[in-house]
Formats: sequence, structure tokens, C-alpha cells
Amino acid sequence: MMNADLRRERAAATFQPELLTHVLDGGAERTRRRKEIEALVFNDPDFQHEDLNFLSRSQRYEQAVRKSALMVMKLREYGIADPEEIYWFKSFVHRGRPEPLDLHLGMFLPTLLTQATPEQQDRFFMPAWNLEIIGTYAQTEMGHGTHLRGLETTATYDPATQEFILNSPTVTSIKWWPGGLGKTSNHAIVLAQLYTQGQCKGLHAFIVPIRQLGTHEPLPGITVGDIGPKFGYDEMDNGYLKMDNFRIPRENMLMKYAQVEPDGTYVKPLSDKLTYGTMVFIRSLIVGDSARSLSRACTIAIRYSAVRHQSELKPGEPEPQILDYQTQQYKLFPLLATAYAFHFVGAYIKDTYRRVSGDINEGDLSELPELHALTAGLKAFTSWTASAGIEECRMACGGHGYSRCSGIPDIYVTFTPSCTYEGENTVMMLQTARLVEAAAKNLQAELNHRKSKEDAWNRTSVDLVRASEAHCHYVIVKLFTAKLSEISNAAVRAVMTELCLLYALYGISKNTGDFLQAGILTSAQVTQVNQHVKELLGIIRPNAVALVDSFDFHDVHLGSVLGRYDGNVYENMFEWAKKSPLNNTEVHESFHKHLKPMQAKL
Amino acid sequence: MMNADLRRERAAATFQPELLTHVLDGGAERTRRRKEIEALVFNDPDFQHEDLNFLSRSQRYEQAVRKSALMVMKLREYGIADPEEIYWFKSFVHRGRPEPLDLHLGMFLPTLLTQATPEQQDRFFMPAWNLEIIGTYAQTEMGHGTHLRGLETTATYDPATQEFILNSPTVTSIKWWPGGLGKTSNHAIVLAQLYTQGQCKGLHAFIVPIRQLGTHEPLPGITVGDIGPKFGYDEMDNGYLKMDNFRIPRENMLMKYAQVEPDGTYVKPLSDKLTYGTMVFIRSLIVGDSARSLSRACTIAIRYSAVRHQSELKPGEPEPQILDYQTQQYKLFPLLATAYAFHFVGAYIKDTYRRVSGDINEGDLSELPELHALTAGLKAFTSWTASAGIEECRMACGGHGYSRCSGIPDIYVTFTPSCTYEGENTVMMLQTARLVEAAAKNLQAELNHRKSKEDAWNRTSVDLVRASEAHCHYVIVKLFTAKLSEISNAAVRAVMTELCLLYALYGISKNTGDFLQAGILTSAQVTQVNQHVKELLGIIRPNAVALVDSFDFHDVHLGSVLGRYDGNVYENMFEWAKKSPLNNTEVHESFHKHLKPMQAKL
Repeated sequence: MMNADLRRERAAATFQPELLTHVLDGGAERTRRRKEIEALVFNDPDFQHEDLNFLSRSQRYEQAVRKSALMVMKLREYGIADPEEIYWFKSFVHRGRPEPLDLHLGMFLPTLLTQATPEQQDRFFMPAWNLEIIGTYAQTEMGHGTHLRGLETTATYDPATQEFILNSPTVTSIKWWPGGLGKTSNHAIVLAQLYTQGQCKGLHAFIVPIRQLGTHEPLPGITVGDIGPKFGYDEMDNGYLKMDNFRIPRENMLMKYAQVEPDGTYVKPLSDKLTYGTMVFIRSLIVGDSARSLSRACTIAIRYSAVRHQSELKPGEPEPQILDYQTQQYKLFPLLATAYAFHFVGAYIKDTYRRVSGDINEGDLSELPELHALTAGLKAFTSWTASAGIEECRMACGGHGYSRCSGIPDIYVTFTPSCTYEGENTVMMLQTARLVEAAAKNLQAELNHRKSKEDAWNRTSVDLVRASEAHCHYVIVKLFTAKLSEISNAAVRAVMTELCLLYALYGISKNTGDFLQAGILTSAQVTQVNQHVKELLGIIRPNAVALVDSFDFHDVHLGSVLGRYDGNVYENMFEWAKKSPLNNTEVHESFHKHLKPMQAKL
Repeated sequence: MMNADLRRERAAATFQPELLTHVLDGGAERTRRRKEIEALVFNDPDFQHEDLNFLSRSQRYEQAVRKSALMVMKLREYGIADPEEIYWFKSFVHRGRPEPLDLHLGMFLPTLLTQATPEQQDRFFMPAWNLEIIGTYAQTEMGHGTHLRGLETTATYDPATQEFILNSPTVTSIKWWPGGLGKTSNHAIVLAQLYTQGQCKGLHAFIVPIRQLGTHEPLPGITVGDIGPKFGYDEMDNGYLKMDNFRIPRENMLMKYAQVEPDGTYVKPLSDKLTYGTMVFIRSLIVGDSARSLSRACTIAIRYSAVRHQSELKPGEPEPQILDYQTQQYKLFPLLATAYAFHFVGAYIKDTYRRVSGDINEGDLSELPELHALTAGLKAFTSWTASAGIEECRMACGGHGYSRCSGIPDIYVTFTPSCTYEGENTVMMLQTARLVEAAAKNLQAELNHRKSKEDAWNRTSVDLVRASEAHCHYVIVKLFTAKLSEISNAAVRAVMTELCLLYALYGISKNTGDFLQAGILTSAQVTQVNQHVKELLGIIRPNAVALVDSFDFHDVHLGSVLGRYDGNVYENMFEWAKKSPLNNTEVHESFHKHLKPMQAKL
């Protein structure tokens, strides 16, 4: 039975959530297909499992390996081959969490396709496709992240044996962080500084076997393992890899572009912009992920705020829904608007990437640098905003937000690494800044009385980051606005127009100093903006629940007692708690081991 | 051997960190005594244990119980009785984490002292002092937090048997969250609505036995257990308690103030402001905790930023320390200044509370309401700022911040509940707002065309929260400035003056819109403020490491590989990772159970 508050909220909405779901999915047919795949997973008893919150990390890892192995087999059984459909399937199986085969499927196989020669594809691709070879992508080192030229791992060519000798010369050069490297993979694509004929030729990729096929034991010369517990990513065996004079055949260097000939002669690649493509692709995924993660957190916080009654607005009256408090609306509705905005930005980047990919395949790289710079900023902006927004949603749920049963801690720790990987956000923002004009004045002033242009860049980088953020906000408002005209249903368009306006005005109200200082807005106009934001909160209020329903997250995928579609929060919280491992016995063993002896002594 | 970068940083500092440590501790003698207690704990083999990150929650709870039992015995053995010294000892034993006896020591015993009659003290205090009775404080219910009048638990007086009948009439009335309630306590002070002679007399406190002394089994009529895993607090058995017609003697109601006579006649207490005292005290602890938690995170991030080299400022030059990047300084130095500011605010509230406590004992409650309102706002302001700041420190450490070995995830999940408990922050801010004038205009405007004053309050509460924040910032700047004149050493005073200025100007630069709109600053002045903030970053840079050294966190207490005093980060990170439970075997069992069968089938 549905909670009465949620039933009333849904009845009062001014639009049909299904129609908005179609807009998000890109059409009714896409929604139908997504739900079909969802049903394949959620109705499959093989994919059921105990609540992961009650398991140890080793058990969680094992559950993830079990499901990943099943997933690969079932994807082939069902004949699901479209990348987006595979993404959905995977996301439902692992409920939005990373999994041990992520790097094999998402980096190892694609890298073979794009960087291996036909001969290498013959040797490696089918074994990898059938998971005889399970691979990962080992780039980051313990002491080196964003700055690729700083990587220390070496691959030295030995023409006598026609082999590369791989070495991790220092502690800081140990490969660190790659997903699936610790326990799952038996191969890795290793990025290393290539030395041949006494010269360093820069970073190149090598296929390195790390564990014995069949026994899975680490090979001699290889030290490999799990890097230990993290904030989240419990299911993922992020790993370390240390190589000591480990030899691989010359043919294991990925040679589609650069080559080392048998005698050690180095042949340069044609262009170095090609790697931009992969980075743009992964960043487009992160923007989409920002939208989805923030949407999940908003769904939980808004539904729970409609169910939860607390305090009193007027003495003697019943406790109101906390969604009726202006402070609660001010916390949640701008985030809801942001989640929608990011969905449209994610879709835009994906479309643009598809279009530009076509050009790349035809050899036209002209649009890549600009797209690379823009996506860098959008990746940083959306992941920062979403990361902070998820935590705001958690705190908006009061104390229960802190319980694992709320699901929000998990969303947060799963999402927040996006602020760091694939380019640390501040660095990303500075990449975008190289486009942006607004910080130019400060930079020029610094240039006039500083020695070098690099010093000046560093001394104005705070302004540059700020300018990039403002640019990103502008781009997002533009994309959101453009999207409105594509929405055919009038009721849906009306509510999305309100959200778009809230997104734009809230962004201004948070940065009024910049607008006032630049003389773009007057004090009176700022007052109007702030007033308008508050009015929009009241206007959006009746549609808040329908707006999160439109994200259409299945309860199993949402994984939250607070955010349940039926709103029956409290009974289910009690049922969940009873399953806590500490409740396996009425009296915990620590009573007999520690408390009772202490009582006897005091 | 100390890392060369840190050695150079320390040699270049313009002041002696020890002298600043004395300022923080409140004198050289306090520092000496703190370090003496620190040594008692850290040199004691009984308090050593495996890294908690590698244990299951049940194991972590058991370790905590073991250490808490030892702690109680050793505190008495050493004769440590001063509350602050007990706090230090406890904090070193549990390394800043909460522990299962927290509520017994911090709430159960003090409540007995302040609210029990002499007869009740005779019956309960010594057994509780000797931990025969282990108690907790059960106020919050599943559906009710901040708003005490909404609590549903009932205690109905039965004059026939001279007993109270305790009931949890609904699912939402189940006591939820109290620390130590789940598995550790055998008693609880339960807050319940008192019914006698057919009338509800509001919330009162009752001593309720919940487990059998000796066997520790739950009593008939009592359902008690652990509420399940949370974001953090793994060591704490936050619990639930459901009571079904559970009877306790009349004498178990805490009767120092209100009373129920044997025939059921209710005698009113003299004042209801007395509970303010406890709340002010706990909030003063939270402000101090904001300072310490943020200081720990800053120590880790700043030391690591001095050790870590990344990217290049100028082509061809060695990778600089990331602490030399302006963006990194802009992230970390305002947080460092904030940590110092909060230390002084915490000390101020503690002193004020001590002074006012004297007045309270002499019956003078006149200063309490104002102190109550001010601490509400400062509690919210400092906990929000610290919570967000800790995460900024984590992200400033790049990818390794996400590893549990950084220690920052732990600091965050341990601290962030402060934003919710002892008063949800938004509610706290609104309490402070009742002091504050700045939002008055909006409120008046709303009043002119709204029906009720409650509606108007709700419709301007966003402004009120904002006004409270500004007021808190102002109060903190004032307290920080006042502190400067008390610092006798000129070199220390100089660097603290720089930090104080940074704290003040950074706060303005983050809210320039308000200052411009109110006509307090001109555009040109805002530009100067922003410029001055950037200059201060460069001025503070050479003292950054010495400024975090002054917090004087012992490595064991800091619990961070990245923040080690000696800076030997990378070797120790590798050693730490090797101990990950996933590395107990070279080949994880999931390979044999799941991957190998899959490989055979594909």
C-alpha cells in the first residue's frame, strides 16, 4: 500500500511523469527497451543477493566477481551487443557500483581494438573476448597521476632477444589504482617510458601477462596485489603492480601507431591527438554519471521529505511534511534542477562525441581540441557540483541519511572519485580556462611585472578556475534552454521551463558578487533575482515528487529504504536493521570477553 | 629519516611551532601534561591493535569494547579524574573515534548527577560508576529528532502498582540511534511522554533496565538491537529499543525536578531552562571537535602537498611541490586559517560555559538563553564548514585521499554527523536568527501581506539562515582578533595575524555579493580584497608546514600514511597495502569459484 502523502503528491502533479521519462531516455521506445532490460536483470534469481552493507569487503568482492561472470555469459545468451544496452544491463546487475571486469570491458578490449595491429588482434582479441585473458589498463603510478610525462615505469628494448624489459625502478613508480588489477586480471596494458637504442621515446602501451593462465598465480618478476580498503569501491580490487626485469616479446608493444622494429629502430606515430578521443568519451560518461548519481540522491531526499513530518510551522497544527519548509526546498530544488540540467549536458556531449568520432574515423581531427577543452571543464564542473550535492541530499535527510539504509553514503563514495580520476578537477578547469577570456586582464597585469608567463599563469590560476566555472554554468544554461523547445508536451515543457529558470537564477544568486562587480546587474536586480528564486521554490513544490518519479529508478537500483517508491519507510527500516550482523546473536561475544571481566574487576 | 622536503620546510619557518602549540593548549604546562597522557596511552601495549580498516564491523566493535573496558580500569589506576584529561585519554585510546561507552560516561552518569534525587543516586550511581549498570540516553525516535514535543514513547503511571508502563505505540516511536544501546548497555535513560491521572504532562526521563544483569539477555517486553551499518561509527552500536507494556517502579522516574507522587499527583519543575545547560555544553564540544577534525585533515593535506611533486610549472624544470600551486594554496590555506579560528572559538565557548555554569549553580539563568542561541549558530556554522572542509582536504590529496590509508575518509565520516545531531544545522541557524536583525526587512515585508507570522517566518527562512551565517562569521573574526593580543611571542603573533586576516578577507571574498549589494564595499575594494587574499597565500606558504606541526598530532592519533610527520609516504603506503585482507592469499577464492568456471563455459 502506498504511503498517503506520496499518493497525494502524485495525484496533484500537473504533468505525466512517463512523458518526462521519455524525454530523458530519448523517446518512448528507448524507455520501453530500458525497462525490458531492467526486467531481465531484476527478475533473474541469479542476480539476487544479500544486502551488500552486511558483508565484509572480501565477500563483497566475491559477490561482484560472481555477478560479473554471470553477466558476461547472460549478455551473450540474450544477444545484447549495443554499447548503451550493455551499459544498462551492467548498471542494473551491479546497481550502479563499479565491478572487477570494468577495466577489462571498458579499457582493455577497446584499447586492443584501437591500438593493436591486425596481427596483435588475432593473438589477443578472441582470448580476451572469451575472458581467457582478463586485462586491465595500468597507467597511474603511486607517485604520478594527471601528469603523464612524470610516469617512471620503463620498457627497455633488448634487440638481442627482441624483448622489452619492464621495470618499476622506484617505489613511486609502482602501478597503483587500476581497477581489477589486484586479484582479477591476468594481463595488463602497461603504460611505460619506452627506451630503445639508448633513447627515451616517451610513453607507450605494452601488453603484459601478470598471472599464469590456469593457476592464476603471479608470474616470476611480478608483484601484484590489492591496494587495500578505500572510502568506497569495496567491490573493486584496485591494485598495485611492480615489475622487476620482467621480459615480454617485442610483439607485445601495441604497434598500430608507433613501432619498434626488430633492430630497435623507432617509428613515430602520425598524431598524438588520437588519445583525446578516448578521454572525451570517458568524460562524457562522467557527465552522464554526475546527472544519474545526483538524480538518485534527489529522488531519495525528495521522496523522504514528502514522507517525513517534523516540528511545527504553526502551534497546535500537525507536524508538516518537511518538504514544506522553505529551507528544505532551497536545499533540494536547485539540486533537482541541476540534475536535469546535467542530464541534458550529458546527452549533448554524447551526441557531439558520436558526430566528431565519425570525423575522426575519416581523419578530420579539427574539432577535437576544442571539444577536449570544453569537456574537461564540464567534467570538473558537473562532478564537483554533483559530489557536493549528493552530500547535501544526505544531510537533508537528517540522521537517517547517515545510515547505510538510506543508500546515499553509497552513492556518494561511489561517485566522488570522479572528481579525481580522468583528470583532477582543478587541472581540468585550467584546461578549459585556456579558452576563456574573462581572466585575461589579471593575467595581462601579472605578465607586465613578472618574469615568466608560467609564473603569471600560476599566480592567476584561482581567477582562471573561477572564470571556467562561470563559463560552464553559462554553457549548461544554454544547453538546458535549447532542450526546452524540443519538448512537445506542453505540461512537461512548462515544468521544465520552471526548473531551467531556477537553475539559471540560482546560479546567479550564488555569484551575485561577480555580476555586481562587473556591472551586469544592479543591486535592485539582484534583490529581484533572489526573490524570484524563492517564488520558484513554491511553484515547483507541487511537482517535486513527480519530477523525481520521472527519473524512473527501480527500487532495487535505488537501493534506499528512505527513497522507496511506496514511501513505507519506517517499517522497512526496522526490518533492515534486524538483519545487521551485530544482531546475529542477542548477546555479542564482546560482553563475555571484555565487559563481564571488567565488571568483576571494578 | 625525514623526507627532505619536509626538513627544508621546517627549517625555513619563521616561528617555533612549540610556542604556538602552547597557545593552542592554553600554556606550556598544559602541553606537557597532554603529552604525558598521550605517552601513557601510546606506549601501552594493551592499547595497540591491528589497523581497524582491515577488520569487519563486528571485529571493530569488539576492539572498541575491549579498549573501553581497559580504559575505564586504567583511568582509575592512574587516578586521572579531571574531565579534560579524561577526554584526552579517551581520545588517544580510541584515536578520535566514538566508542560504545561514550553515552554511559558522557550522558548516563552526568544525567544521574544532575537529575536524580539523592535516594536515586544512592541506588544507581555507584553501580553505574562501577559499570555494573551500563547505561545510555534514549531520546531520538525513528520518526522524531529535533522536535522533542513530537516524541511518541509513553510512560503511563499506574497508581495501583505504583509503576510506570512504558510503551512504543507505533513503529515511528521506536527509540533509534542512541549510542551503546544496541549491544553494550543494560540500562537506558528513556525520554517519554508522561501520562498520569489521564493527562499528558510532557517529556520526562526514566531509568529503564533493558538487559538482565549477569546474562546480558534482553528483558521480557524489551526488543533491543543494533540499527545496522552506517557511513561511519563502525565501533558504535547505535541501537533501537521497542518497549511493550514494560513496567518500571515509580522510583525510576528521574525526580529531582518534576515528580509523580504515589497517588499519581504531578508536581511541576521550577524551570525548563535547565536543559539548556547540557545542550550548550555539548555544542561547545562540537565546536572544539570541528576545530580538531579540520586541523587533522589540514595536517594531512598540507604535509602531503609538501611531499608530493606533480606536473610542471615551467617546461623542463623538475616537478614542483604541489603546495607551490596557487590553486592548492587557495584550497588549503583558508581552511588552515579556519581551523585556527575554530580552535579559539571553541576555547571561548568552553570558558564562557564554565563561567555561566557557576551562575547556573547559584540559580542565575539570565545569560543562558542568549548563550543558547549563539552556540546554536556557531555549532551549525563550524560543523558545516569543517565537514565540507575535510572533504576539500581529501580531494586536495588527489587519488590517494580516497584510500583509507589517507585517514581522511575516516575523519570525515566520524565528524559529519555533528551537522545533524544535537540539533539539525538549519534548525540551529534559525535559532540564532531570532537574534539577528539583518533579515528583518524581508520578514516585515512578508508580514505585511501574509496571513500569519509563522508563514512569514517560513517564507524568509532562507534569508534568515544566510543572515545567521554572516553573523557567525563576524563573531568568529572578532574572537580571532581578540586572541591575537594575548599571544606574547612576536613571531607567533605575526603569523597568526596573517592567518586571521586571511580568514576575514576570504570570508568577505566568498560573499562579495552581500557586501556590494549593501553598499559596504565598492567594486574597487572587492578587487583589492581578492588581490589581498592571493598575496596572503604567498605570505603564508613558507610557514604552512610549521603551522600544521603546531597542532601537534601524534602520528598514531593522526592515523594517516599521507600525513606522517616524517613524510615517508610512499614506502609506507606500499607496506600498508600489502596487509589488505584481499592479499591474504595470492589467488582469491573467487577465481576458482567464479572466473575459472566462466572461462570454461565461454
